[in-house]
Amino acid sequence: MRTTQFFLSTLKEAPSDAEIVSHRLMLRAGLIKRLAGGIYTWMPAGLRILRKVENIVREEMNRAGAIELLMPAVVPAELWQETGRWEKYGPELLRFKDRHQRDFVIGPTHEEVITDVVRKDVKSYRQLPIHLYQVQSKFRDEIRPRFGVMRGREFLMKDGYSFHTSFDDLQREYRNMHDTYSRIFTRLGLKFRAVAADTGSIGGTGSHEFHVLADSGEDAIAFSPDSDYAANVELAEALAPDTPRGAAGEAMQKVATPDRVRCEDVADFLKQPLTKTVKAIAVMHDDDFVLLLLRGDHNLNEIKVGKLPGLDPFRFATDAEVERFLGCKPGYIGPVGVDAAKVRVIADRTVAAMDNFVCGANTEGFHLTGVNWGRNLPEPSLVADIRNVVAGDPSPDGKGALELCRGIEVGHIFQLRTKYSAAMGCTFLDETGKEQVMEMGCYGIGVSRIVGAAIEQGHDARGIVFPAAIAPFEACIVPMGYAKSEAVKAAADKLYGELRAAGIDVVLDDRNERPGVMFADMELIGVPHRIVVGERGLAEGKLEYKGRTETEAQMIAAGDMLAFLKEKLCA
Amino acid sequence: MRTTQFFLSTLKEAPSDAEIVSHRLMLRAGLIKRLAGGIYTWMPAGLRILRKVENIVREEMNRAGAIELLMPAVVPAELWQETGRWEKYGPELLRFKDRHQRDFVIGPTHEEVITDVVRKDVKSYRQLPIHLYQVQSKFRDEIRPRFGVMRGREFLMKDGYSFHTSFDDLQREYRNMHDTYSRIFTRLGLKFRAVAADTGSIGGTGSHEFHVLADSGEDAIAFSPDSDYAANVELAEALAPDTPRGAAGEAMQKVATPDRVRCEDVADFLKQPLTKTVKAIAVMHDDDFVLLLLRGDHNLNEIKVGKLPGLDPFRFATDAEVERFLGCKPGYIGPVGVDAAKVRVIADRTVAAMDNFVCGANTEGFHLTGVNWGRNLPEPSLVADIRNVVAGDPSPDGKGALELCRGIEVGHIFQLRTKYSAAMGCTFLDETGKEQVMEMGCYGIGVSRIVGAAIEQGHDARGIVFPAAIAPFEACIVPMGYAKSEAVKAAADKLYGELRAAGIDVVLDDRNERPGVMFADMELIGVPHRIVVGERGLAEGKLEYKGRTETEAQMIAAGDMLAFLKEKLCA
Repeated sequence: MRTTQFFLSTLKEAPSDAEIVSHRLMLRAGLIKRLAGGIYTWMPAGLRILRKVENIVREEMNRAGAIELLMPAVVPAELWQETGRWEKYGPELLRFKDRHQRDFVIGPTHEEVITDVVRKDVKSYRQLPIHLYQVQSKFRDEIRPRFGVMRGREFLMKDGYSFHTSFDDLQREYRNMHDTYSRIFTRLGLKFRAVAADTGSIGGTGSHEFHVLADSGEDAIAFSPDSDYAANVELAEALAPDTPRGAAGEAMQKVATPDRVRCEDVADFLKQPLTKTVKAIAVMHDDDFVLLLLRGDHNLNEIKVGKLPGLDPFRFATDAEVERFLGCKPGYIGPVGVDAAKVRVIADRTVAAMDNFVCGANTEGFHLTGVNWGRNLPEPSLVADIRNVVAGDPSPDGKGALELCRGIEVGHIFQLRTKYSAAMGCTFLDETGKEQVMEMGCYGIGVSRIVGAAIEQGHDARGIVFPAAIAPFEACIVPMGYAKSEAVKAAADKLYGELRAAGIDVVLDDRNERPGVMFADMELIGVPHRIVVGERGLAEGKLEYKGRTETEAQMIAAGDMLAFLKEKLCA
Repeated sequence: MRTTQFFLSTLKEAPSDAEIVSHRLMLRAGLIKRLAGGIYTWMPAGLRILRKVENIVREEMNRAGAIELLMPAVVPAELWQETGRWEKYGPELLRFKDRHQRDFVIGPTHEEVITDVVRKDVKSYRQLPIHLYQVQSKFRDEIRPRFGVMRGREFLMKDGYSFHTSFDDLQREYRNMHDTYSRIFTRLGLKFRAVAADTGSIGGTGSHEFHVLADSGEDAIAFSPDSDYAANVELAEALAPDTPRGAAGEAMQKVATPDRVRCEDVADFLKQPLTKTVKAIAVMHDDDFVLLLLRGDHNLNEIKVGKLPGLDPFRFATDAEVERFLGCKPGYIGPVGVDAAKVRVIADRTVAAMDNFVCGANTEGFHLTGVNWGRNLPEPSLVADIRNVVAGDPSPDGKGALELCRGIEVGHIFQLRTKYSAAMGCTFLDETGKEQVMEMGCYGIGVSRIVGAAIEQGHDARGIVFPAAIAPFEACIVPMGYAKSEAVKAAADKLYGELRAAGIDVVLDDRNERPGVMFADMELIGVPHRIVVGERGLAEGKLEYKGRTETEAQMIAAGDMLAFLKEKLCA
């Protein structure tokens, strides 16, 4: 491709309403153009990237044995009514009536349609398993579309659906997809993590999210650098400390802590480490009052609390309730001396292993120090994991210590089981001729979202830093004086021909712009390898090479450039 | 691809509501599956075909210098309001309100969106010309979707739009697209014609349709086998006969033709050739009565009549009007003896060249024979082309005689000129710095429709006959006893590997079905080349080859099969 034959349209400034770096850079680089809120045209440079992502996804899905088809975007309401989603789905589902007043939706997901296809065509266990997928533009009427293609209303998805005779076989395909998705994101050149949506182990779980790692990610992820363990911070298990509770060395003392309510302030005031303090959080389940205990530097995990026996659902206690059950205002409450008949005490695993700790005295303006389980108060009625993990916590799989990072969800695999197949009568005859409901899995990838996520992960002050696999071009040739110097033109054309013949996706910038403009544009759109053809170098038989993230250029003999570049692209 | 790894799902019977052969065969072959009226899932075998068509279209568009982008399907109403199409477009335009009650359409065509893109990004003549295109699923709410993918509601289109500094440059690109479309349909392996939407010459016309020729086509096309002339029958010009009017040999006679009203009956009764008869058709323009004269075997062309001076618009005269102006009931009316002050006589070019003809006598039950212009009636007030062409008419370009055929419109190229660019302020600065409105062209191809049209053109009693370029597979290997014979399995696998390595798109039917079932399926889905691997042949080192349209199979030495097949595929 030559730049003059291409519709490259970069901007000096991004529109001010672009909130995140990928959105700003995609607009500035001319990859997308806004048509309406959350609705974008993929300009030629952007579409090249989108197609590269799409092709890698397609190749790996095919390699994994999935079969591509193409379902309609427009879906009759009857199918959605069969599964009850017509009523349940919110206003992000675009519904409309056709000219005959029949109800339709623009399908943001296609479980109903594929289940309808399969129930009509698959009758026997001999036709199973089958995995069908499509790559399709979808529409979801987000209430507040933002972040460019990261949360757009019209977007490109790969959605796949598998059908099985047994849960075992569904799990086999689930692992196959887990591996396939890992291959896809590896090939895309992205740093990513497969994140368990619940316990964090592949085995028993029903759902994994695939996240591209980026500081701007919406989701906080805990992972072990020593294993493939990764989980959403809110779902990662916080293990009990492996060091046992120490001896009750200090005597318990009631100390004045005037106006010190937060653990940080109490620790400062008492010159104790924060890790010696315990905070008490009062919650209610119906009329039951429960005191949750956390170490001062830890945060409550409401999801975990909500799963505890007798706490589903729970709410935070009002100040009046705290005073009624503990006789003290919030800020100075604690587990010592409470009426076990009225107050249930649940300790986080870490708190249960603490000794000689500090906690509220249930007297306004006072805390207790040197508190010990068994001696100053009974053992907690329940010890449980009720906090968010923090960096340095042991990994739940026993391998290494957790680190935290942020991620952007770009893929999701899910064991649907029989949710849709049972509702829609998608059955097969097994070996004995008995009718059985199929087990189903579904597997999504946000193709357009990946482009945004890749930019969130890869950018610098000069623009986008794309992995070569999805860059709009793998390499660019920037001639110094293409229109003026016969030698430069000849050398640039020759190299361009050679690289193309070698299958390298190269762009020749033949615009006769100033070098600075061409350099800036090629850096902005994220071309990973740049070759400058100039008279000075040519006089010595050399071309200048510079990698997108390198600070220094280097001179390479013209005859060696192809081999040099090939090595770079294979690296 | 192996059949067992593929979701092949053929049917014995097509649903009875499938009206045309392509629709029936696509359903029977499992290429598509109906979801709702005019809305289909493209099953894996069908999608392979669709993608092959799409890829050929894309390759040739790129080769022609057009640049691909991807516009949103969902388009804000404001853009359609700018051009007035929001009001003008009928109920086939899907309109909806988003959750914030803003109006949108699902764009069935994208002139507004692309003009918006270009007006924002292109400011100077230096950026022109530019041709941008996309391949996209579109929705048009047809009142009566039918014929499967031929007139579906959701369909795949290639739509391209070009922008120019001058009408000359638009015409250059228009010719480029005319050539490109011709290359596309040639590569697709289809018999087609580019049909002028008006005069039939490429030069001055603003629009051409590309038709795949098929007996079932909705459009009648006149073409010259000796040139590239082709036009819709209704638009093809009927030239004046090149033989001049003969001498007035016979005397005019008034003859009784009781109950003979139609020219055919009159000619029979009078034992005259039909080509000696003239029929008169009475029409009105406001209060003007006009008598149109056609040779008995010709048909009136209302489009041509409507373009005549003083006949826009016209309507057919009532029986009362005919009696008032001619004093005779319809069926026996004619041009002889009419009052020139009240009745305007317009003769078709052919009629004007007739002599000694038969026409109505303006007396019930009587016709005139031996009628001659100038002798029995004045020369017509106007001689014009007012009929449809018929087979054998001279081609308007002077090259050969016209033939008639039927076609399915699968492409359309159109000189939009400034219709959209003027309405939307899509301008550029010319060399002198003056603001000018861009000239526009648009170019559509019905990608999904092509699949149906190809089947209308290519089918037989056993199913679809696809050109190799768009067949779901180029070749199939059908083993006789894949599971039973080691030798057959080994030979089939070896051949499969060889053909794949040679880049041939081959399917190995490893289903262990009866040979008849496998043969029938492969013929039904239109695979053009079949290789049978059987023990008998292998004993002699041979494989059986049969082309889809051939009646006899032939034995080929196993070692020669690849070369043999390659030659077939290049043919």
